[in-house]
Amino acid sequence: MRPVDMNKDQLAEFKQAAEKCYEEYKALGLKLNMARGKPGSEQLALSKPMLDCLTAADAAEISDDIFNYGGLDGIPEAKKLFAPMLGVPEENVIVFGNSSLNIMYDTVSRCYTFGAGEGLKPWKDCGKVKWLCPVPGYDRHFAITELFGFEMINVPMTEQGPDMDVVEKLVSEDESIKGIWCVPMYANPTGITYSDETVRRMAALKPAAKDFRIFWDNAYCIHHLTDTPDKLLNLFEELKKNGNDDMAYQFASTSKVTFPGSGVAVLGASEANLKWVKKTMTIQTIGHDKVNMLRHVRFFDGKFENVLAHMQKQRAILEPRFNIVTEMLEKELGGTGLGSWVKPNGGYFVSFDALGGCAKRIVALCKEAGVTLTGAGATFPYGKDPQDRNIRIAPTFPSTDELKKAMEIFIASVKLASAEKLLG
Amino acid sequence: MRPVDMNKDQLAEFKQAAEKCYEEYKALGLKLNMARGKPGSEQLALSKPMLDCLTAADAAEISDDIFNYGGLDGIPEAKKLFAPMLGVPEENVIVFGNSSLNIMYDTVSRCYTFGAGEGLKPWKDCGKVKWLCPVPGYDRHFAITELFGFEMINVPMTEQGPDMDVVEKLVSEDESIKGIWCVPMYANPTGITYSDETVRRMAALKPAAKDFRIFWDNAYCIHHLTDTPDKLLNLFEELKKNGNDDMAYQFASTSKVTFPGSGVAVLGASEANLKWVKKTMTIQTIGHDKVNMLRHVRFFDGKFENVLAHMQKQRAILEPRFNIVTEMLEKELGGTGLGSWVKPNGGYFVSFDALGGCAKRIVALCKEAGVTLTGAGATFPYGKDPQDRNIRIAPTFPSTDELKKAMEIFIASVKLASAEKLLG
Repeated sequence: MRPVDMNKDQLAEFKQAAEKCYEEYKALGLKLNMARGKPGSEQLALSKPMLDCLTAADAAEISDDIFNYGGLDGIPEAKKLFAPMLGVPEENVIVFGNSSLNIMYDTVSRCYTFGAGEGLKPWKDCGKVKWLCPVPGYDRHFAITELFGFEMINVPMTEQGPDMDVVEKLVSEDESIKGIWCVPMYANPTGITYSDETVRRMAALKPAAKDFRIFWDNAYCIHHLTDTPDKLLNLFEELKKNGNDDMAYQFASTSKVTFPGSGVAVLGASEANLKWVKKTMTIQTIGHDKVNMLRHVRFFDGKFENVLAHMQKQRAILEPRFNIVTEMLEKELGGTGLGSWVKPNGGYFVSFDALGGCAKRIVALCKEAGVTLTGAGATFPYGKDPQDRNIRIAPTFPSTDELKKAMEIFIASVKLASAEKLLG
Repeated sequence: MRPVDMNKDQLAEFKQAAEKCYEEYKALGLKLNMARGKPGSEQLALSKPMLDCLTAADAAEISDDIFNYGGLDGIPEAKKLFAPMLGVPEENVIVFGNSSLNIMYDTVSRCYTFGAGEGLKPWKDCGKVKWLCPVPGYDRHFAITELFGFEMINVPMTEQGPDMDVVEKLVSEDESIKGIWCVPMYANPTGITYSDETVRRMAALKPAAKDFRIFWDNAYCIHHLTDTPDKLLNLFEELKKNGNDDMAYQFASTSKVTFPGSGVAVLGASEANLKWVKKTMTIQTIGHDKVNMLRHVRFFDGKFENVLAHMQKQRAILEPRFNIVTEMLEKELGGTGLGSWVKPNGGYFVSFDALGGCAKRIVALCKEAGVTLTGAGATFPYGKDPQDRNIRIAPTFPSTDELKKAMEIFIASVKLASAEKLLG
């Protein structure tokens, strides 16, 4: 019988069992972390050979330009290598330092202080600025727009991506809406990929604000976990078809391809957008780390297909972890009505929706029993999940044994919190 | 006889000779560059062994934390290594990416958007913001404050540093003055080092604006060219004595120690300032490239004395170049009254002051004859040298042979432009 269908006595019994189970796990005194989308040790090891790709002996043979000042927008070989990741021509790429988050922050900051393009009013002078946030979403995105004081508006995520009826209506009516955060592929945290129709509608938006910008964070564009990966329609091409070339910035990085702390990050955008970016960027820096760009180019022998092959090695490490999570959820919670989740075809997370009002309690119970999760609410602007339901599970960092233990504790916590809730 | 003392006929003769000489050089069709403070090939070679300091085999032995996300303010070993460069305790250091210019830009941008500290009004909301610019100075500094729309005020440089009478008066009277650019050691371009008194007076400023900040760009702090290097009083300690702990940000980098494009840059500041920086920095990025930090730490075996020893190798390459410049100037222009310059004890430049109204013409003549110099005026805000006198000579990048040729052309151009000027 499903707990949601139990009478009070049955529920009390269910709760007692859940409590006993939870207390047993708690007594183990574990310390496990499923909080952040961090690659684990085995994954990092895959890229360590990259450190030998550019030795002192190699350096003696190559142009000094690599080591010196200059090259504001990155080395051509790196643009070429990573352009297919963004799905844009290489001339529409700027290669930055190690962090796509930093590019996004700087892009918001630039629009805020100087405007989104030549002759456009800085957002700081536009009165109240509003921003669309598909939810659940990525906490670090929301943190940027919160810092700049933008009013964030929740947009429900469907299985096709953000609810485009809502997006279209809001964007076309309200000039103060200047942007939207999107993780179009294997979305953080839901794992879904925007449907072709969603991408088409996104590219065809007719915003009231002419400086409306889509922040297309394609963080998981090649981070597949199956033989039948999702496919994402090419936004850049769709924008062109609609004459909306300048409406999006696209971001990606090798943070979860090579090293999270020492990868390279890229921006893809229209010619006009890149020109505008470079106008202030050339005041901000003389250029990013070209040695590390070249190290990446050499590691992959300049070929995008080698990047994809590398991602298959990442998959081999990650797929079993995701299977542990979804199989354990299915086995213990499937059909109980105590939660829902989707097995993603890629990305870094499993998004779990608990009974309403239970997420905070589950995260707290897990914490008490030694399992750190992303804070409940973190997947919503201002950390406020209106239904207190969503929890982001990040299975990549722990070992498989640790992950199994952590999931046992998670499941015990879900049962206990649900029983408490249902008993009222 | 000095050209400035010649009569018209003598001058005409002088001009004719200068013209003949200049045309001969021009006919050589050379292509030489003394425009930017770029290290040359031999200098870059000194640091190439650093590329072997962190191999895949090494990586297998060290903590994965180096490769993963995290470590917002840099690895402790790097803080420790570079703290003496800034002259601050290691807990007062944040290690960034490859560019101190980027830190300066971000610092201005942060103050502009969010204020210079907790509870302080953002500069964007302060009406007209003014900024003190010791002149001649560094064009990339001026470009930042120009971009943000600050009104830049020229402050004359003396042989002791910025004219502190002017600085004290302006800063204490005008609340709209929010900052000053300083290159306190081997200043760009004059090469002088601020005297102890200048540093003391700078640290003891009583600004009308409580959010006034000294931007202390110590870019050449260890870039000595003699056995008797200049010494700079420790600003951090002087600020403390005056209770002005929060009044400065200090910047430095290894751009001209290891690789200009792939070094590490550091910020030194008070605890309160760093806390404020990190408050927004943690939204901007998860952290900078720790692998490159560790590479630097290993290259120098974690010891600042090894950094200094490395700079002696740099000096061995650079000192002859600076000698070529100053000896040729002395031999050809010494006592002529056609220009003045100071032989610096360190840094990257020789600052040349021509006869008033001649700098642009000299740079143009050089360009015509194939020698690229920093644009005349570049050492002043808005590119406007009120007397059209100052030219920045950057001797580091060309080979010694090229440098000699370039200086011959420079000197010929000075003579010709001066003769033209004196003839009226």
